[in-house]
Amino acid sequence: MSSAYVPGLEGIIGAQTAISLVDGANGRLIYQGYVIADLAQEMSFEEVAYLLWNGNLPRRAELDAVSSELAANRELTEAAHTALTALPKDTDPMDVLRSVVSVQGVQHRLAKPSPPLAIHATASFPTILATFYRRQQGLAPLPPRRELGHAANYLWMMNGNEASAEAVRALNTYLVLLADHGMNASTFTARVIASTDSDLISSLVGAIGALKGPAHGGAPSAVLEQHEEIRAAGDAEAYMRDMRRRKERFMGFGHRVYRVYDPRAAILKEMCRRMNPTFYELAARIEEIALKILHEEHPERPQSTNVEFYSAGVLQAIGLPKEYFTPTFAVSRVAGWSAHVLEQAAHNRIIRPQSEYIGPEPRKPVPLAERG
Amino acid sequence: MSSAYVPGLEGIIGAQTAISLVDGANGRLIYQGYVIADLAQEMSFEEVAYLLWNGNLPRRAELDAVSSELAANRELTEAAHTALTALPKDTDPMDVLRSVVSVQGVQHRLAKPSPPLAIHATASFPTILATFYRRQQGLAPLPPRRELGHAANYLWMMNGNEASAEAVRALNTYLVLLADHGMNASTFTARVIASTDSDLISSLVGAIGALKGPAHGGAPSAVLEQHEEIRAAGDAEAYMRDMRRRKERFMGFGHRVYRVYDPRAAILKEMCRRMNPTFYELAARIEEIALKILHEEHPERPQSTNVEFYSAGVLQAIGLPKEYFTPTFAVSRVAGWSAHVLEQAAHNRIIRPQSEYIGPEPRKPVPLAERG
Repeated sequence: MSSAYVPGLEGIIGAQTAISLVDGANGRLIYQGYVIADLAQEMSFEEVAYLLWNGNLPRRAELDAVSSELAANRELTEAAHTALTALPKDTDPMDVLRSVVSVQGVQHRLAKPSPPLAIHATASFPTILATFYRRQQGLAPLPPRRELGHAANYLWMMNGNEASAEAVRALNTYLVLLADHGMNASTFTARVIASTDSDLISSLVGAIGALKGPAHGGAPSAVLEQHEEIRAAGDAEAYMRDMRRRKERFMGFGHRVYRVYDPRAAILKEMCRRMNPTFYELAARIEEIALKILHEEHPERPQSTNVEFYSAGVLQAIGLPKEYFTPTFAVSRVAGWSAHVLEQAAHNRIIRPQSEYIGPEPRKPVPLAERG
Repeated sequence: MSSAYVPGLEGIIGAQTAISLVDGANGRLIYQGYVIADLAQEMSFEEVAYLLWNGNLPRRAELDAVSSELAANRELTEAAHTALTALPKDTDPMDVLRSVVSVQGVQHRLAKPSPPLAIHATASFPTILATFYRRQQGLAPLPPRRELGHAANYLWMMNGNEASAEAVRALNTYLVLLADHGMNASTFTARVIASTDSDLISSLVGAIGALKGPAHGGAPSAVLEQHEEIRAAGDAEAYMRDMRRRKERFMGFGHRVYRVYDPRAAILKEMCRRMNPTFYELAARIEEIALKILHEEHPERPQSTNVEFYSAGVLQAIGLPKEYFTPTFAVSRVAGWSAHVLEQAAHNRIIRPQSEYIGPEPRKPVPLAERG
């Protein structure tokens, strides 16, 4: 009944899904049958979230309804606001999100996951982050503005001024691009939790914890820090070759799936070029050197610039602080997590693999008094 | 590279572990090489938690150290206390635990999982639950008492009186019996989260959410409710045969693993017989009828009384309210979850299975204006 252990479940199918396909061979990311490049420039985050949750693009009236429901559910509950305000100011924003999403969601209790509950949760993420960020800055929180879309309202609540159309558009594209990506550790976490017939919030809180890990979503600000270090060194190539001799990783490279350039990185790279030329100039040079060195080391491996590499430059250009890069990833990915929970709950079977015991053979315990 | 999809990952090995073995063929549960029957009656929860975390039984000085560290870390942080107090009084205690463990743990940030952090988290669970329970009852919270062990202090903080030696001993045995059980949905959740290099608290918060699901730990109080229903019906067997005609499940039966009687259920059954004769009399009769009917339906299937069936009677006899049965399961299992996180962090590879796409073939999106 069981086969050999595969570390990391690499290559094992953890779920069937209609939500997205990472078509690595062709460098395509597909959401419910639509190629990401066709969605990223044209559609709002609200439209794409509707697509992920429902499996089809909304008609005008449906889009209006989901947009206004998202706008209407941005307020925190009193309990969530109190919990947020009690957290120390230096709390990791991912821990803020994990904690306050949990408190905000206690009213869900054991409700079966549904699109209205997905809307309720998704709507709250920007409010939680912006409220905490302003508190860290010693600024009063700003109430959400119903007339603004998801991306524009997030920037408004963070910064307290009307963001440029370009910044709103860029954040919207970022939110669309990152909203789902087949199976990955946080999405899989959400599905495992949902498979016990638990509630949506429990799944999302688990997924936030998984995304926090540096091996998953927790490292985009590290790209900025590494660029700064390389820039300061002067001779980029010499320094980067030195890094490899010290066995250091290049941040923003490496993924398991794409054989050709990550389609999300391609779009973000072009946005960076337009919006953040200072970042772009250095980043493009670093990318070129990194790919050359990585190719020399492993000529058999494909292109490996990942979505984090140019995300950093886009989020910086939009005006988000680097401590909020991973949380902003969560603002986007909550749409995909929720969609996976809805799908899991609709065709459920508890996800419960086996384990292989590698401990000692059974023996009698030595009594405490005789253990010395 | 990938093989056929197996729903629920049944039979797939999700992890190698030295922490526990569910030896279904022989009806044995083994912790780090010790059979549960040898641990359950003799050892304190503290001793077994040490075993799970460290892989060996403690010497006297080590046991004293872990016990006093557990006792010293029972207080909630100010933020955790504020968050707990802000929650509505009718909040599901599992949601209380999920939220307040998260807040209590923000000080961990991205610390590498370690035994001291496992102690810190494990120590807080009873305090969180007891503080919330007393608030629900309109009673002032009680401070933890350092001179009491883990089980005795939990009962003290819940009830505000010195529990009988028998109740303390029974709760201790329950906590030892439920502390780990190979791979299961919540433990697997904890390991997937840990595999991203996230922190212990993120893993535990995810695991709490998974345990909450009725298909995992979220149903032990349902056993009591079903017994009451059967008792009220008068003719137990006729009523239970009727239940099956209505396709209703018997609560407290069924598991994937044991071919013979679950060793934990056997110990709990004997404790029930002594401590809760009213429950026992009815439960033993219901068990007999249930096993007869289940055997008639599926003669090929083995014995299937599970750990929840007699847990309910033991926890009731100890004086815990039924809404706190699943949370008390978490008070025990946090020891196992933490041990698995320590093990995963020590030999890490990100757990990231594939998905199989079953959505539509890629097509061009119809523009919003043309969708009607």
